[in-house]
Amino acid sequence: MTFEEARAQFPVLERVAYLNAGSIGPLPRAALEAEEARLERELAEGRSGMQFVEELLEARERVRTGMAAVLGTSPELVALVDSTSRGCQIVIAGLGLAAGDEVVTTDQEHFGLVGPLHASGARVVVVEADEEAIAAAVTPRTRLVALSHVLWTTGHRLDLARLRRPQGPPLLVDGAQSVGAIEVDLDGADFYTVSAQKWLCAPDPSGALFVRDPELLPLTLPSMFAQLSYEADGSFAPKDGARRFDSGWMAAPALAGIEAALGVHPEWRYEAGAAAAARCREVLGPLVDVVTPPGHATLVSFRPSGDPTELVAALAERDVVVRELPGRNLVRVSCGWWTSDDDLRRVADGLAG
Amino acid sequence: MTFEEARAQFPVLERVAYLNAGSIGPLPRAALEAEEARLERELAEGRSGMQFVEELLEARERVRTGMAAVLGTSPELVALVDSTSRGCQIVIAGLGLAAGDEVVTTDQEHFGLVGPLHASGARVVVVEADEEAIAAAVTPRTRLVALSHVLWTTGHRLDLARLRRPQGPPLLVDGAQSVGAIEVDLDGADFYTVSAQKWLCAPDPSGALFVRDPELLPLTLPSMFAQLSYEADGSFAPKDGARRFDSGWMAAPALAGIEAALGVHPEWRYEAGAAAAARCREVLGPLVDVVTPPGHATLVSFRPSGDPTELVAALAERDVVVRELPGRNLVRVSCGWWTSDDDLRRVADGLAG
Repeated sequence: MTFEEARAQFPVLERVAYLNAGSIGPLPRAALEAEEARLERELAEGRSGMQFVEELLEARERVRTGMAAVLGTSPELVALVDSTSRGCQIVIAGLGLAAGDEVVTTDQEHFGLVGPLHASGARVVVVEADEEAIAAAVTPRTRLVALSHVLWTTGHRLDLARLRRPQGPPLLVDGAQSVGAIEVDLDGADFYTVSAQKWLCAPDPSGALFVRDPELLPLTLPSMFAQLSYEADGSFAPKDGARRFDSGWMAAPALAGIEAALGVHPEWRYEAGAAAAARCREVLGPLVDVVTPPGHATLVSFRPSGDPTELVAALAERDVVVRELPGRNLVRVSCGWWTSDDDLRRVADGLAG
Repeated sequence: MTFEEARAQFPVLERVAYLNAGSIGPLPRAALEAEEARLERELAEGRSGMQFVEELLEARERVRTGMAAVLGTSPELVALVDSTSRGCQIVIAGLGLAAGDEVVTTDQEHFGLVGPLHASGARVVVVEADEEAIAAAVTPRTRLVALSHVLWTTGHRLDLARLRRPQGPPLLVDGAQSVGAIEVDLDGADFYTVSAQKWLCAPDPSGALFVRDPELLPLTLPSMFAQLSYEADGSFAPKDGARRFDSGWMAAPALAGIEAALGVHPEWRYEAGAAAAARCREVLGPLVDVVTPPGHATLVSFRPSGDPTELVAALAERDVVVRELPGRNLVRVSCGWWTSDDDLRRVADGLAG
C-alpha cells in the first residue's frame, strides 16, 4: 500500500489538515461502509435471534483478536471495553483501593485515570512525569503505579522498561496516546488500556484492556459478558482469561466498523508516524517553542507566541484541526502515519498568519 | 398518527413478526437515517473541533431531556449511561457496600443487577418476587433493595408503591422491561435504570439512570463527564445534579439515532402496548400455559408443551421472533405498541405447528 493509497482511505483528509487523532482519529471509509451495511441489515432483520447473537459474539472475538495483535499479546489477555477510562475503572475498582493505600501517578494525566484514582479513597501521590521521580515515590504502602505511556499533554513517552520493578506494585498504563501510534511493548505493564477511536481510527467509543494475570484481579464490575453461568444471588462462574472483564454490550454495527478500521493500517505505520512527528518538529521549530522532545511519539505540543484558543480557532478557519490543552498554554499537533508534508505546511502557514 | 403509520416506521415488521423488544426493540427508519447522516458528516469533516464538541454536548442534553420526559422527571436527575447494567454498577459501587451489609433482591433478576450486587461483597438476600416477601426480608442491616419493575422472566410487574418505605433502605429499580413499555411512576424509587434499546427502540447500547438525590450518592466511577474541573491528584468539582453520573462518551451518530428513536413513539403507546399484551394472552391461552398474569406489562411468557429451544427455532423459521428464557422452560413474547393482531396470529399458527 503506497502512502497515497493509505491516505486516500480517509475522506476528511481531502480538504482538512486533520491533526487531532489524539482526541479522535480520522474515520476510514471502510469503517463507515461496514457500519452502514450492518445497520441496514438490522433495520430489515431486527436485532435478535440465534444467528444475530452468534454473529455478534464472533465479531467480538475478531475484534478482540485484532486488538491483541496490535498489542502483541494473546486474545486471552484482552478485554473489550468502551474506553481507556472504563479500563482504568475496572482495574482500580478491582484492586479494592482504600484509605491508607497509596497510588503513584504523574502530574500529566487525564481525568479518566486520576478521577477514578482519587475516587478510590487511596492517597494519590503525584510526581513529575519522569522515570526516576516515579520510582522514588514508591513506598511499601503503594498499591499501584498508574500513568500514561505517552503523555497527552507534552507528547513525552515514558520508558516502561525503566519503570519495571519485579517485586514492586502493579503498573497500570494508560495507552490512549500510544496504541496504534507507536509500537507497543507490554513488558513491564500489568494492565494496559487501549482507546481505539484515536490512533486506530475506529468508531467511537471503543477500546480494550490488557490484563497480564486475569485470575489475580478481582472482578468487581461484572457485565453480562463476565459469566458462564450464575445463580439467583449473583454468584457466578467467570469466563476464562480477560474476557471476564469485558465491560458491556457493543453494537454489531460498531463492531463491524472497528473490525474494518483495524484493517486499514499499513505495515509501515509506525515508521511513518515517527517520521511525520519528526517533520512536524522541523517545520514548527523555527516558529514556536516546541515542548515535545525529539524521538518520543506522535504528539507534538508547542507553546504559541499568542493566545492558544485564538490560534486553534484561526487554524480551524483554515481547515487545520489541532487542539488546545486548556490551562497549559499549549497547542497539540497529532501526527499520524497518514499525515502529509502539506498538512504540516498548512500548520506553519497558519502560524505565520 | 394512525396504527398503520406508527408501525410503518419499522421496516423489520414488513416481513417479521418481531416480538422480542424485551431483548432489543425494532429499529425505526428515522434512527438509522439520523445515524447514517451523522456518520457521513464525520467521515467528511472529522470528529473533533469546537463545533463538533458543542454539538455533541447539545445532543447529550437533548437526549437527557428526552429520557427525563419518558420517566416523567427533570433532566437534572437523569444521567446518561450505556446500559441498565452500568446504571446498577454506578449505584452499587457508589453505596460502598461491603461484607456485613445486606441487600434484598428477588429470584427473578438479570445478571446485570445481581452480578454487581454479589461482587459488592454484601450478603445478597434472595426472596420470591412478591411485594410482601420483599418487605419482610428487610432488616436493619439492609443497605439496598434492588429489583426489576417488570420481571424479565415472567413479565410480572411489581407494585413499587407497595414497596415504598420512607424510613427504609433505598430502592434501586431495574427499568429494563418497563421504560417505554408501560407508563412509569418513579414514586418510591431512589434509583431507576433505563435500557433505551429495548422498548424505546433506540440504537444499542443506550440508557439512562434516574437518581432522586444526586448529592447523596458518592461518585466512585467518575467519567470525564463527571467534572467541571480537576486537579492533578484527581480531586474534582463535580457537575450539578445527576449529570455527574454520566458513564462515558457516546458517539454523535448514536446520539442522533437515540434522539430520532425517542421521536417515533405515538401518544397512545401505553394503551396499545397493554392491549397487544392482553390480545396475546387471549390468543395463546387456549394453546399453552401462560404464566404472566393479566394486566401486568407487555411481556407474555408461557410454558410450551414441548422443548422451548426447538419451538423458538421453529418459530424463527417462520420469521416469528420470540425468545427462550434458558433454564426456566419458558418462552417470552414481547408485545409492543407496534404489535399487530397478525403478528400474534403468526405465533399461534407456529405453536399449532
